[in-house]
Amino acid sequence: MTMNQEQFEFVCEHARGAMLLQTIADTLEWDERTGMPIAGGDYRATQVSTLRGMVHHRRTDAKYGETLQSLSENLVHEDPAGDVAATVRGLLRDWKRNHRLPQDLVERTSRATVKGQQRWDAARRADDFGMFQETLAEILDLKREAGQRIAEGTDRSAYEALLDEYEPDARVEPLNQVFRDLRVPLVELIESIREAPRQPNRSLLERDFPIAAQRDLSRFVAERVGFDFQAGRLDETSHPFCTTLGPRDCRILTRYDANWLPAGLLGTLHEAGHGMYEQGLRAEWFGLPPGSYCSLGIHESQSRLWENQVGRSRPFWQWLFERARSNFSPALDEVSLDELHFAINQIQPSLIRVEADEATYNLHIIIRFDLEQQLIAGTLSVKDLPEAWDARYRSDLGVCAPSAADGVLQDVHWSAGLIGYFPTYTLGNLASAQLFDAAEAELGGFEEMFSRGEFAPLLEWLRERIHHRGQCESGNDLVEKATGKPLSADSLMGYLSGKLRKLYRIAG
Amino acid sequence: MTMNQEQFEFVCEHARGAMLLQTIADTLEWDERTGMPIAGGDYRATQVSTLRGMVHHRRTDAKYGETLQSLSENLVHEDPAGDVAATVRGLLRDWKRNHRLPQDLVERTSRATVKGQQRWDAARRADDFGMFQETLAEILDLKREAGQRIAEGTDRSAYEALLDEYEPDARVEPLNQVFRDLRVPLVELIESIREAPRQPNRSLLERDFPIAAQRDLSRFVAERVGFDFQAGRLDETSHPFCTTLGPRDCRILTRYDANWLPAGLLGTLHEAGHGMYEQGLRAEWFGLPPGSYCSLGIHESQSRLWENQVGRSRPFWQWLFERARSNFSPALDEVSLDELHFAINQIQPSLIRVEADEATYNLHIIIRFDLEQQLIAGTLSVKDLPEAWDARYRSDLGVCAPSAADGVLQDVHWSAGLIGYFPTYTLGNLASAQLFDAAEAELGGFEEMFSRGEFAPLLEWLRERIHHRGQCESGNDLVEKATGKPLSADSLMGYLSGKLRKLYRIAG
Repeated sequence: MTMNQEQFEFVCEHARGAMLLQTIADTLEWDERTGMPIAGGDYRATQVSTLRGMVHHRRTDAKYGETLQSLSENLVHEDPAGDVAATVRGLLRDWKRNHRLPQDLVERTSRATVKGQQRWDAARRADDFGMFQETLAEILDLKREAGQRIAEGTDRSAYEALLDEYEPDARVEPLNQVFRDLRVPLVELIESIREAPRQPNRSLLERDFPIAAQRDLSRFVAERVGFDFQAGRLDETSHPFCTTLGPRDCRILTRYDANWLPAGLLGTLHEAGHGMYEQGLRAEWFGLPPGSYCSLGIHESQSRLWENQVGRSRPFWQWLFERARSNFSPALDEVSLDELHFAINQIQPSLIRVEADEATYNLHIIIRFDLEQQLIAGTLSVKDLPEAWDARYRSDLGVCAPSAADGVLQDVHWSAGLIGYFPTYTLGNLASAQLFDAAEAELGGFEEMFSRGEFAPLLEWLRERIHHRGQCESGNDLVEKATGKPLSADSLMGYLSGKLRKLYRIAG
Repeated sequence: MTMNQEQFEFVCEHARGAMLLQTIADTLEWDERTGMPIAGGDYRATQVSTLRGMVHHRRTDAKYGETLQSLSENLVHEDPAGDVAATVRGLLRDWKRNHRLPQDLVERTSRATVKGQQRWDAARRADDFGMFQETLAEILDLKREAGQRIAEGTDRSAYEALLDEYEPDARVEPLNQVFRDLRVPLVELIESIREAPRQPNRSLLERDFPIAAQRDLSRFVAERVGFDFQAGRLDETSHPFCTTLGPRDCRILTRYDANWLPAGLLGTLHEAGHGMYEQGLRAEWFGLPPGSYCSLGIHESQSRLWENQVGRSRPFWQWLFERARSNFSPALDEVSLDELHFAINQIQPSLIRVEADEATYNLHIIIRFDLEQQLIAGTLSVKDLPEAWDARYRSDLGVCAPSAADGVLQDVHWSAGLIGYFPTYTLGNLASAQLFDAAEAELGGFEEMFSRGEFAPLLEWLRERIHHRGQCESGNDLVEKATGKPLSADSLMGYLSGKLRKLYRIAG
């Protein structure tokens, strides 16, 4: 039997309609986070929840699900990596996830996570994990149940089913293996860096960098690397993010700190990386899997690649140096390119994930990934979590939080029910390094290109290998196809080790 | 029989649901006009039209209409000026308007006005009325038909039925009478002003007024007169407007001209007047007639009152003068309060309505009001319109446009099918003067209050007499109740004549 074209068009139209409503809700949320008057919050919440309800209603529609089922049984003649198969597979996957969760469980989880974030916030302010303990246990029970229901009848574990929401088709074992491959040499490298006699001058970056000048430079850099301002905007907010409001309307948001240069500039490059990925998706498939981002890990690989592989490279700073120096005069007047580049690449174990450098960041993630697996499996109880947290920070990073607020309570994720989300950050770092290596091997001459401010060839390569592929493959397959080998820790370790040993003058 | 409470709640809920979707569409349009990336336009149009379609679907729902009918037959025990009666009356009125227009006519009108605006724009650029003539005739035919259908079985004319959309329950004859009462003495007054030997120095206002300084001062003034920034925003756009996105979220937009002070400052006061009206509506009735603006004329009365009666008054400038002078130094360094106040009150017949002063503005409106009545009645043909237009401009304003672009083609309204809209501008001017007189008579001491920057008593008076009443009365009844007499030309003529004769030193 062949595809039923009419059925295929019905599900596409249905999914596009849901996306239309979703992007409307996202527009309202963008407005809420950029400038809505404070008193408008209650009504805005009603508007957004009404729209989200309409989206959910569409996405769980029975006839839609049955049609997807029927289509999926007749895909034999379609290329599995083609747009049609990807559409049916992706839409059915989402429909099934929704369908397997009873309304009651969804509502209880929604209530628990609203309460969870309030309790987490209060507990963090009071620096008292005990205040959050019960709610976290409740959230974990609900997420475990959700994972079990989604995994039912498959060979996946509950945790894997949760991870699948953010990283479709990822399996825990290979991931654990790659993370172990990364962790061991990374801990060693960080140890050597800590003991290195040559250290950068961090205070260079803490001088007076007026916000208006940062804004100008950040916009210039975002435009130059390839973020399209005809189809996007750059704004400011307290928690930077990237949101897509239509096939040609991507909004990125950043945050400037007048006494910490990297926050705004590299933060903008990070968000521009996300934004360029969204702008590179195929508009004609907007709202459907072939025109949607592959996974959170792949999304993060795009932001990290521009932030780190490009934005912390010496050629990039060679290009930007004079402009930055005159832009921020007198802050960098007496600073050399090498001093600045070294400062931007400082590695220093610290307590807070979101403030961590590109090397230690991964250790923060691996700790969370290991602990959340144990929490879902039930091999670690919530009450023992703070102790397990601190133990891992001591052994992996050599630091220990003086308080729960800067320790186990630092992230919002678990309180919001985001279990299986953390590993995608390090997946992104691994993929960014591996993709960059492959692009460089193929195109060559990045050093010279970047030092001239020329980034189009790299972006083009990413467009073709990653952006245009949407969800036609899983994140793993996408990386393997683009780079010619399975995702491993090799590129990231090679990149970090190569750059940092040179900067810190560590033999190796 | 008494009110059926269940039915009443059903219609309120239904109407609130439509308003929820309407405010979402309005939020998207606000975003479109303030900063949406240019390439986002196509998708945004689809989002907005989908939402507008959902609103229309709700508002024309048959069961909703039947329930309103049934409720309206059982209103005998309700206070006609109370919230319940106003709700049923207002919702039924809107439903009937929609219901009486066949879908086909609505669609043809929609297509004709989209084309109309394109043709109008092209004709204006080419300065060729002939290019627009045919489309305008088509639009007028469609609007005439709509008016006839709405008026069917009532004692109203087609034009009155069209006017009713913007100014519910207004009748043409009394309006014509008031406009005649205004026109004759106004033409005389403007004639005397033109011949007055003492004239203001307009060029004071054309000096260098940096936009950033205008922005600061405008925000300061808007806040001080009472626009609530907790429940509102002030932004910039090319065509200023005011839009309400929720019961506590009102956005006003203004436009600054670095070489024309009144545009930004008085324009902001104008929009703040609209905004304060919206912010003064009762939030608990949001989306229902008791919590909605009464009519366009009443809306305009609020903006004009703050722009003109307050913003062009001497006490207001007495209060703001030193601040403005230091704010814009050196532009106003050598200027006296009296010189500035005189310049701000310059009266000068001109060709373009939107650039007209507060006196001649009304003559622009009366010309349009007279001509559009004749066009709908069929006593003036479209082909003869340019000649009729020019003749009236010569007789009423003593000026004649050298080209159609600055004459009959200057406004977008008719091309957009807005017939019956123009008179609401002058209705607003008439009402603003009459309301201001009544407030002053009751509260007293405005001169002293304004010169201290104290505006709360005036705003409070407007809140109670106008804002809180929503649609509980028609615009005429509202003014009559608030001021103790029917709307007339007396206050506006008294205000203009008193102020201008003194400034221009005209006897009389």
